[in-house]
Amino acid sequence: MAKLIRERFSRPAGPFLQRFVASIKEDGRLVTHDIAGSKAHATMLENVGLLTAAEAELIRNGLDAILKEWEAGTFTLDVAQEDVHMNIEGRLTQLIGPVAGKLHTARSRNDQVSLDLRLYVKDAIAEIQDGLAKSCKTLVARALEHAETLLPGITHLQRAQVLVLGHIFLSWREALARDQERFSEALRRTNVSPLGACALAGTSLPIDPVHTASLLGMKPFENSLDAVSDRDFIVEFVSAAAMAMVHLSQISETIILWSTPEFGTIELPDELCAGSSIMPQKKNPDLLELVRAKAGAVDGALMSLLVTLKALPLGYNRDLQETKPPLFTAVDALKGSLEAVRLAIDGLTVNIKAMARAAEDPSLMATDLAEDLVRQGVPFREAHGRIARMVREGLASSSLSPLDSVRAKRSRGGTAPERVRERIQELDS
Amino acid sequence: MAKLIRERFSRPAGPFLQRFVASIKEDGRLVTHDIAGSKAHATMLENVGLLTAAEAELIRNGLDAILKEWEAGTFTLDVAQEDVHMNIEGRLTQLIGPVAGKLHTARSRNDQVSLDLRLYVKDAIAEIQDGLAKSCKTLVARALEHAETLLPGITHLQRAQVLVLGHIFLSWREALARDQERFSEALRRTNVSPLGACALAGTSLPIDPVHTASLLGMKPFENSLDAVSDRDFIVEFVSAAAMAMVHLSQISETIILWSTPEFGTIELPDELCAGSSIMPQKKNPDLLELVRAKAGAVDGALMSLLVTLKALPLGYNRDLQETKPPLFTAVDALKGSLEAVRLAIDGLTVNIKAMARAAEDPSLMATDLAEDLVRQGVPFREAHGRIARMVREGLASSSLSPLDSVRAKRSRGGTAPERVRERIQELDS
Amino acid sequence: MAKLIRERFSRPAGPFLQRFVASIKEDGRLVTHDIAGSKAHATMLENVGLLTAAEAELIRNGLDAILKEWEAGTFTLDVAQEDVHMNIEGRLTQLIGPVAGKLHTARSRNDQVSLDLRLYVKDAIAEIQDGLAKSCKTLVARALEHAETLLPGITHLQRAQVLVLGHIFLSWREALARDQERFSEALRRTNVSPLGACALAGTSLPIDPVHTASLLGMKPFENSLDAVSDRDFIVEFVSAAAMAMVHLSQISETIILWSTPEFGTIELPDELCAGSSIMPQKKNPDLLELVRAKAGAVDGALMSLLVTLKALPLGYNRDLQETKPPLFTAVDALKGSLEAVRLAIDGLTVNIKAMARAAEDPSLMATDLAEDLVRQGVPFREAHGRIARMVREGLASSSLSPLDSVRAKRSRGGTAPERVRERIQELDS
Amino acid sequence: MAKLIRERFSRPAGPFLQRFVASIKEDGRLVTHDIAGSKAHATMLENVGLLTAAEAELIRNGLDAILKEWEAGTFTLDVAQEDVHMNIEGRLTQLIGPVAGKLHTARSRNDQVSLDLRLYVKDAIAEIQDGLAKSCKTLVARALEHAETLLPGITHLQRAQVLVLGHIFLSWREALARDQERFSEALRRTNVSPLGACALAGTSLPIDPVHTASLLGMKPFENSLDAVSDRDFIVEFVSAAAMAMVHLSQISETIILWSTPEFGTIELPDELCAGSSIMPQKKNPDLLELVRAKAGAVDGALMSLLVTLKALPLGYNRDLQETKPPLFTAVDALKGSLEAVRLAIDGLTVNIKAMARAAEDPSLMATDLAEDLVRQGVPFREAHGRIARMVREGLASSSLSPLDSVRAKRSRGGTAPERVRERIQELDS
Repeated sequence: MAKLIRERFSRPAGPFLQRFVASIKEDGRLVTHDIAGSKAHATMLENVGLLTAAEAELIRNGLDAILKEWEAGTFTLDVAQEDVHMNIEGRLTQLIGPVAGKLHTARSRNDQVSLDLRLYVKDAIAEIQDGLAKSCKTLVARALEHAETLLPGITHLQRAQVLVLGHIFLSWREALARDQERFSEALRRTNVSPLGACALAGTSLPIDPVHTASLLGMKPFENSLDAVSDRDFIVEFVSAAAMAMVHLSQISETIILWSTPEFGTIELPDELCAGSSIMPQKKNPDLLELVRAKAGAVDGALMSLLVTLKALPLGYNRDLQETKPPLFTAVDALKGSLEAVRLAIDGLTVNIKAMARAAEDPSLMATDLAEDLVRQGVPFREAHGRIARMVREGLASSSLSPLDSVRAKRSRGGTAPERVRERIQELDS
Repeated sequence: MAKLIRERFSRPAGPFLQRFVASIKEDGRLVTHDIAGSKAHATMLENVGLLTAAEAELIRNGLDAILKEWEAGTFTLDVAQEDVHMNIEGRLTQLIGPVAGKLHTARSRNDQVSLDLRLYVKDAIAEIQDGLAKSCKTLVARALEHAETLLPGITHLQRAQVLVLGHIFLSWREALARDQERFSEALRRTNVSPLGACALAGTSLPIDPVHTASLLGMKPFENSLDAVSDRDFIVEFVSAAAMAMVHLSQISETIILWSTPEFGTIELPDELCAGSSIMPQKKNPDLLELVRAKAGAVDGALMSLLVTLKALPLGYNRDLQETKPPLFTAVDALKGSLEAVRLAIDGLTVNIKAMARAAEDPSLMATDLAEDLVRQGVPFREAHGRIARMVREGLASSSLSPLDSVRAKRSRGGTAPERVRERIQELDS
Repeated sequence: MAKLIRERFSRPAGPFLQRFVASIKEDGRLVTHDIAGSKAHATMLENVGLLTAAEAELIRNGLDAILKEWEAGTFTLDVAQEDVHMNIEGRLTQLIGPVAGKLHTARSRNDQVSLDLRLYVKDAIAEIQDGLAKSCKTLVARALEHAETLLPGITHLQRAQVLVLGHIFLSWREALARDQERFSEALRRTNVSPLGACALAGTSLPIDPVHTASLLGMKPFENSLDAVSDRDFIVEFVSAAAMAMVHLSQISETIILWSTPEFGTIELPDELCAGSSIMPQKKNPDLLELVRAKAGAVDGALMSLLVTLKALPLGYNRDLQETKPPLFTAVDALKGSLEAVRLAIDGLTVNIKAMARAAEDPSLMATDLAEDLVRQGVPFREAHGRIARMVREGLASSSLSPLDSVRAKRSRGGTAPERVRERIQELDS
Repeated sequence: MAKLIRERFSRPAGPFLQRFVASIKEDGRLVTHDIAGSKAHATMLENVGLLTAAEAELIRNGLDAILKEWEAGTFTLDVAQEDVHMNIEGRLTQLIGPVAGKLHTARSRNDQVSLDLRLYVKDAIAEIQDGLAKSCKTLVARALEHAETLLPGITHLQRAQVLVLGHIFLSWREALARDQERFSEALRRTNVSPLGACALAGTSLPIDPVHTASLLGMKPFENSLDAVSDRDFIVEFVSAAAMAMVHLSQISETIILWSTPEFGTIELPDELCAGSSIMPQKKNPDLLELVRAKAGAVDGALMSLLVTLKALPLGYNRDLQETKPPLFTAVDALKGSLEAVRLAIDGLTVNIKAMARAAEDPSLMATDLAEDLVRQGVPFREAHGRIARMVREGLASSSLSPLDSVRAKRSRGGTAPERVRERIQELDS
């Protein structure tokens, strides 16, 4: 544990404590953000006169040097220095001497770690937005390709009414579009600089948190106590991730079902499938099974966060350190799953004939027949009953074709090919 | 189970099935929303010519009559009718005859229940926004009252630096203000009418979903399949509620600690405390303990939802019915907890003297002393070391008073009384 | 709030507090257990001389009278009396006068509510064990019936090797048998009487907790402080329930898949299926969809408990009251789901021909062919490669029949009909 | 992705698939177990004649060599080989040639990975049982030391009745003793060998799973399908871990409170405390804050597992791979937390005088006074009321000393020093 901050103690940190409280295993993710934050902090300190121009320059150059070492793999985090912050301050001291000790002026690890995490989440949101946008684009492209591909729509996994495949792809896009909105909104609350809150109370030194924030492209915090203990942005990010993983798990489930021999309506490309160690014939959709499973990883991450934060008393508590692993788990799971699902949608081959054959099932027309009766003035409930009795006795074949059926569903948001194409046009414009 | 929709079966629903699938226990909450939705639907059907003006009038009057019966307690939900929708349609049939069977034209329970839940969540958000606003107002009022009340600020539950109590109240307000934002944003995605999506595919009948939506003050849905299976709005609502409960549990924990004899810095009013069945002297903060505990109820509700929705295949699945109980649990827990915390903050008596006495602890000035050295040009890290060694040897008393200490913390967002008052003014304007 | 215990306060409980802290909505489930516990307590008090025989008799008769009123529906719980305990003590006072005030001698609500919950969980475990035993019996019966019914076994939802259906039913039984073990073990730790722990410290009165425990068929507690704050038995029960619900959700998923037209291998009876309000032809497996969904309810209940209990300080805290709703949720969900799954397994019709037809798929024999090569001395890895290449080029039909294939799997625990029958015999004996 | 098993495909695994499905990051934990399992499997194959003695010897020696390479750090897992199993088989092939291809005879990765995980959990349980036993021993030792150390017992964090500190330590031991039981029982269900289940159906080769199991000190599986898909043992282990973490979080919370200046009743040793980067005087209980927080990590792990397993269809699904990370998270969190709490309890200094002073608070005697009245024949409820009214008016000092009070609590399981010592003797014998 960082000796720098243990002058107050008669005895050194025990070896178990050192290992148990260290966060360096995860902190590698924060090195670049920590350095970016420190550079902004140094510039602000220079600006208000707490550092001379020469000191600030020395510190910024030292930090740049550490960044290069990090990128080159020659700077590594040492458990004896406890965390990313003390590791970097320690290395800076080695590089530029005692002036490094001025960098922590009007700063605590409490505001520093919150900043690092906020910068990390900003970056993560940007990558995820990119992944979502790509997935949406792929879905729209495939929807256009399949604006007239017929298949049985299902509810309760039982055949319901004929749909076009493009309509399904667009429905998945709607869900991912809501995810995009949620991440945008989360970003606004993430993009707040806590630097200047110090430990909890602010400082008697003449700092300028608005300047620091602006250097980082962020809004400044409003209350020092809230700034150091707020981890809402992590919970909100992981909540949005959990929602997105629900969507990806549902899409995966449906594609897995379609690729069974029993459904047999799509085929995944070889390069996205896995074999079996014992059964030579197997071609398994492991990729999508893992997406489905990773919904669990993100739900667990969310739960970890909520449990950890529950009933914490006022101010910074070390418990907050445990918000890092679930955040990182969620980022990795969602980024990977987005790419997996996009590759699957992009790469799947549609067995148009098998879909069309299944769409011939006359039971899929039952609602159309009832709507015909409604057009003839029969109250819907009676029409429903009449057709249901026909079904019970074996539905006579309908003169309606599956294509007629979907073409007729031209109500707003319906599955008619013209509606599907219209929506695609709207989205493309 | 509603006979109306079982014409297709040779045998009736078994008694176990009837009880197991019924949702009428919870559906009482949806009666008014179901009726509101049906009235809008009838008006739209009239407008497009699927109902005559007379039929529509009959239906709307029938629905109004049922609403009055519900409010009077003379209309109750019957498990044999399965759910709120079939109960109301059944009663309508009793009241106005077979024309009631026209109401379900171009509508499925799939779009109907989604609408009811969206209207319910809209109302819940309104009530919660009201509760949040009241709590924020109370916090600001008490912050003004205690803009100079000194007490030891803590981190890790150990004394850190002197704060003013008003600064703490404002930090809680910041957290609740973020909750307000999240609920506003959730509302936008909730306020979408799914009516017209029908079972999954839209309809061949000439309906006008934009009209229905506008009658309900909502935006119309974009994709029929998404419209019937989307429960994001429930997950998002409960996520926001879970976050808010984290805040309320943390506030409760702090007040509970302050009201122990060991802290002894606040007292809760008698009317918010409970006694013991065996220990005659007890005055217990049960109210706030329950708030703390109810964070668990809401976290559990969120988890239920995420588990239930995970990997559901395409289209409506009956699983979605199980999103109701956790939603209702979360609404009740959050509404009650908001009121509980507001009453506690409003009613607590601050023991100003006890707080001030505790704020005299000289260790609270250690950082101030280090900052003094910084002002004299000592690098912060060295200043920190020097003061730490003084602490180890028993800190000499500082000439600084606690009030001086907080007054000096006038950096943006800091605990200085002038900053606290400034922020209050900003919020009030 | 019970006035009986508010003599210490200058002001009465406020109306909000009264409603917020009351647990009477859920406490109806505990009335019989509370009375049983009080009767045992009274008998013990009589035995050690803290009650006269006449007093004890009066109290027990009063309690019996209340039980009868409860069963007759004439005794109801009043929110003003806060909880089941104070309601019953209050009613007892009405019935037998001030001597009722002696019943709470050497007892606190802390040990009393723990006892009530333990008795409740005991009963719940008994019912669930009954449900599990019935389900196991049904599975074994259907396994015997289908010891030679062939179908394609799957992994990753892709065809793997031929199985007999009975083997699948037996695999489900194995999972439920583990559930039985877990509930038995949970019962041992539930069946402990906390009576005599009083509020937290025990008592100076000469009571005999071993006697009370023995009257209730329980072991006595060992440490008064642990006795009043231990809710492990609830968490353990709900953990076991969550595991069981995982099993039931998996069984439900498989049956739902089999009952799709695409698989088409089983049919559920009409009386376990639901129709659609709009699509006249629909026959939906709502029963099993709800079981699948209720896994979420129980997982959420478990999470609620863990969150609520996390980091509670020493001794009884009111938070513990919030362990009741998730417990009751879990009990209801599991009991209902067990019955639902049992009815489904018992009632499903197997389409033996469709299963057999699917089992003819030659890819299912690939592993058999590789094992043939192994018998001829080819290393397995090479055999696997050879057959895989054959599959790629279109597997030549195998001379092996599906029945031969399963008959050959006579390794321990394998799918050979003789192994299946052997296991059934073992279980029946 | 292991080429060995992709002969069936026309195209190689894509690079994304390769990375996404690989589990080698976590699989390092399973190397020794995988080798142990393979050696037992080889011996069984030799015994039934599927390997010659020479082949088996070659394979076992090769595996031993790999184990040595692993321990020396010269064998590392390669993502291109997908998982621990294919990495070891691949290395074995390099070392001993094509005969390595015979090791996978009558084995699938499905039974193999289940075995590895079971062996891993067995080891983890052994380590955790050791940690629990040590903690219990420490608690008993400190209980004996403090069998007469008086302090205010609390409920609702408010003073309740006088206790001796040893009684509290023993109450914590009771909770950990229940954890020991749960892990023992989980071990019984973990200690089952799935080897011989192969992919799902067993095998046509003449293997002897009972022999393999016995070589590994395990019971054999009963049903091949259950054997490959059962992950109950992981859920059960993590459930028991979550319960144990609830206990450790509660103990930590109480010690953290006691070590505040406001309670001031214990002090943690320097070597278990951390400093602040900004506040020179700080001595923070980070160790125990992290234990408290890690309850969240384990709860999240449990939730991940339950979500991942929910509604999986029949047979092995790749989703099961995602049970590894939460298992490993739970093992690490619990092992570390057990040691942290043991060190804290062992190392804490009790401020006996501060405890005694606090125990003089006369309100702690209120129940004793009421019990005195009961001994004089006053019904308890009336006694409670009388004392409560005295409290309201300012309790007259009691002639009873705190020591008298605890000495009188000699009911079974009560806090009287003689009861505490008696229980310690019982536990030691």
